[in-house]
Amino acid sequence: MRAEIISVGTELLLGEIQDTNSHFLASRLPAMGIDLYYITVVGDNLERLKEVIGRAYGRSDLVLITGGLGPTDDDVTREAIAAVLGEEPQVDGALAQQLRQFFASRGISFPERNLKQAWLIPSAVPIPNPWGTAPGWWVEKEGRIIVAMPGPPAEMTRMWEEEVAPRLRQRGRGEVLVSRTLKTLGLGEGHVDELLGELTRSRNPTVAVYARADGIHVRLAAKASGVEEAQSLIAPLEEEVRRRLGPYIWGVDDEALEAVVGRLLREKGLTLAVMESFTGGLLADTITNVPGSSAYFLAGYVAYQPEAKAALGVDMELIRRHGVVSEEVAVAMARAARERAGAHIGVGTTGVAGPDALEGKPPGTSHIAVDYLGQVRTTSYRLYQGRLATKRRGVTAALGLLWRALQEVS
Amino acid sequence: MRAEIISVGTELLLGEIQDTNSHFLASRLPAMGIDLYYITVVGDNLERLKEVIGRAYGRSDLVLITGGLGPTDDDVTREAIAAVLGEEPQVDGALAQQLRQFFASRGISFPERNLKQAWLIPSAVPIPNPWGTAPGWWVEKEGRIIVAMPGPPAEMTRMWEEEVAPRLRQRGRGEVLVSRTLKTLGLGEGHVDELLGELTRSRNPTVAVYARADGIHVRLAAKASGVEEAQSLIAPLEEEVRRRLGPYIWGVDDEALEAVVGRLLREKGLTLAVMESFTGGLLADTITNVPGSSAYFLAGYVAYQPEAKAALGVDMELIRRHGVVSEEVAVAMARAARERAGAHIGVGTTGVAGPDALEGKPPGTSHIAVDYLGQVRTTSYRLYQGRLATKRRGVTAALGLLWRALQEVS
Repeated sequence: MRAEIISVGTELLLGEIQDTNSHFLASRLPAMGIDLYYITVVGDNLERLKEVIGRAYGRSDLVLITGGLGPTDDDVTREAIAAVLGEEPQVDGALAQQLRQFFASRGISFPERNLKQAWLIPSAVPIPNPWGTAPGWWVEKEGRIIVAMPGPPAEMTRMWEEEVAPRLRQRGRGEVLVSRTLKTLGLGEGHVDELLGELTRSRNPTVAVYARADGIHVRLAAKASGVEEAQSLIAPLEEEVRRRLGPYIWGVDDEALEAVVGRLLREKGLTLAVMESFTGGLLADTITNVPGSSAYFLAGYVAYQPEAKAALGVDMELIRRHGVVSEEVAVAMARAARERAGAHIGVGTTGVAGPDALEGKPPGTSHIAVDYLGQVRTTSYRLYQGRLATKRRGVTAALGLLWRALQEVS
Repeated sequence: MRAEIISVGTELLLGEIQDTNSHFLASRLPAMGIDLYYITVVGDNLERLKEVIGRAYGRSDLVLITGGLGPTDDDVTREAIAAVLGEEPQVDGALAQQLRQFFASRGISFPERNLKQAWLIPSAVPIPNPWGTAPGWWVEKEGRIIVAMPGPPAEMTRMWEEEVAPRLRQRGRGEVLVSRTLKTLGLGEGHVDELLGELTRSRNPTVAVYARADGIHVRLAAKASGVEEAQSLIAPLEEEVRRRLGPYIWGVDDEALEAVVGRLLREKGLTLAVMESFTGGLLADTITNVPGSSAYFLAGYVAYQPEAKAALGVDMELIRRHGVVSEEVAVAMARAARERAGAHIGVGTTGVAGPDALEGKPPGTSHIAVDYLGQVRTTSYRLYQGRLATKRRGVTAALGLLWRALQEVS
């Protein structure tokens, strides 16, 4: 089934709000066997909307529209669909009554202009929207489907999950696409490619390698006539990929590194403390985003100044000798964090967040250390793409180093 | 100038990543007098990309393309533009040399397939991309402009700000839309509405009120033939809004609360330290997102456990008496942060990040204190919409309280 998405709203074109609806819908289609070819964002303009819907209706089996179902003159999605299909909107008695009741139940008088939310055309059936006043439209004509849903994300996602997706699944013919992402750390993209070798030429399932912020991802994707069949195509391939990359794989699909690290700490009964310089609290923040992290995360210290580091137990003489931005100081911070908090593991980060240099060291210079009961690992690198990216990269590197250390703790 | 945006990438259509580039670009165009009519997302498919670029080139003065400039066979934006314009890509000697140097400087051997990133067509001039290997293309032909930029957001936004926007501004004509957002704290939406009164019925400029995470925003927007004229429409209105809301306005436009607070701290020569419980490091992280924050931010402590709080100077007896989640402990944390770091101001946060209750207190319970040389302010509230939202709201509340305290320091 060939699909496209149309997002309607001048506020999207003005950049006032981000269109998250298209991304949501796009992420839901592959497993339903629906191929998405285009996403188009267009304003509240009848002529342009007619043109865009007309082209979509001409070339796609399924057109998913969000937005433009409000009660004002600017909301023209209904008019545009009617015009493309050459049909005439009429007020539907049952819908009008529901609408009046919706307002009455809230003690608000019914604005007559809202009656357009009770419109239907002969090819459309209404889709219930208990969270708002605009019902959706399910339109079928000439073997094609147009679905119009409201723009507010909460109303749209509910209507999709409860009403639209189930109907589309019933017609599911055609192939589904199921994917499985294995996330690795510790190997470069080229090295992963090399280890995967001939597997990357596999056609179904396919194997693709992506460089992402949290390491190299290997994505396995299979097409089949059903989800289970697709999964059974992926399973042996996943086993083979795990055989080759096993020690480097830290998680799958939507798993986050901080959640995986947290699970390992819990399982092993270990506690953690961190001392941060250039990551400025983002490491502690990321660790504490995980529910239940208070079970293993004892304390974090953000020591932005040399004096603050010294006050927390980092030797001032060491700082003088090597500079604040040094592997030696990262190691001392990791140890100080661990000892001060009475934790099993300490992590230290020192570097130059930028935009200015520090101690003559350029922005992006980064040193990270993990101290597990005196056993120390470090990583150092330099790369600069702005202050926030430097902090984020430092946190990923720290969590990666921590994950690696936890692999070797039995 | 009529513009449209094309975002290229199969991963966008598969819903694997959200297209943030289009939103970024859309938000930048109104003030430049550029009208955006369409955003189209299309996959890494030469035929469909040619069709989409061809249609855009036929109907728009400016076509902004992001993505598809990588070195692989899947990256076909260059091929598609060349085909639409009927031109032939050629390796550019100077670009090829730069590219080889980029790899050599990183000690990586140059993969010959990357040479396609040194392609040009006769109508294109390269746009520098110091943060990546793909230069952009600035294409002019038959009075129209096509700009191709790389897909990674960091590279794209830098190229836009430094290279593309300045060139487009030189050609600006047409009606511009200029907006000015005044950001307030301390008043509810209804109260702001009330104080603005008849102003909200103004037509040009318009006045709109939005409830946002960092307070109530008042957005003034004017259309005119030039930026200065639009600004002169806004100025008297802004003055009137400031007369009515003055003491509650903390910033304008893209200013962030942490940057405004940082500027005040710098101006007044004050230093800051924080001790966090339920915000888990996000407060320190947010403060240190501001370049130059090391001038006033001395130290942050994330004390997730009662023992960690006690070790940092919070009276254990106080914790026992009032519980960790209490206004009293927030106050003690603020003082302990200030004293321990030797700062003028200390901030303390304690609460229940959730999802579970703590000490019988429900998720979302929040206590925040600011201690300025012994003068203490606090705020307490309860609202739960998930763990991350609770942390974020706590940080905004802490920065707001800090801003309010700084208003009264002379």
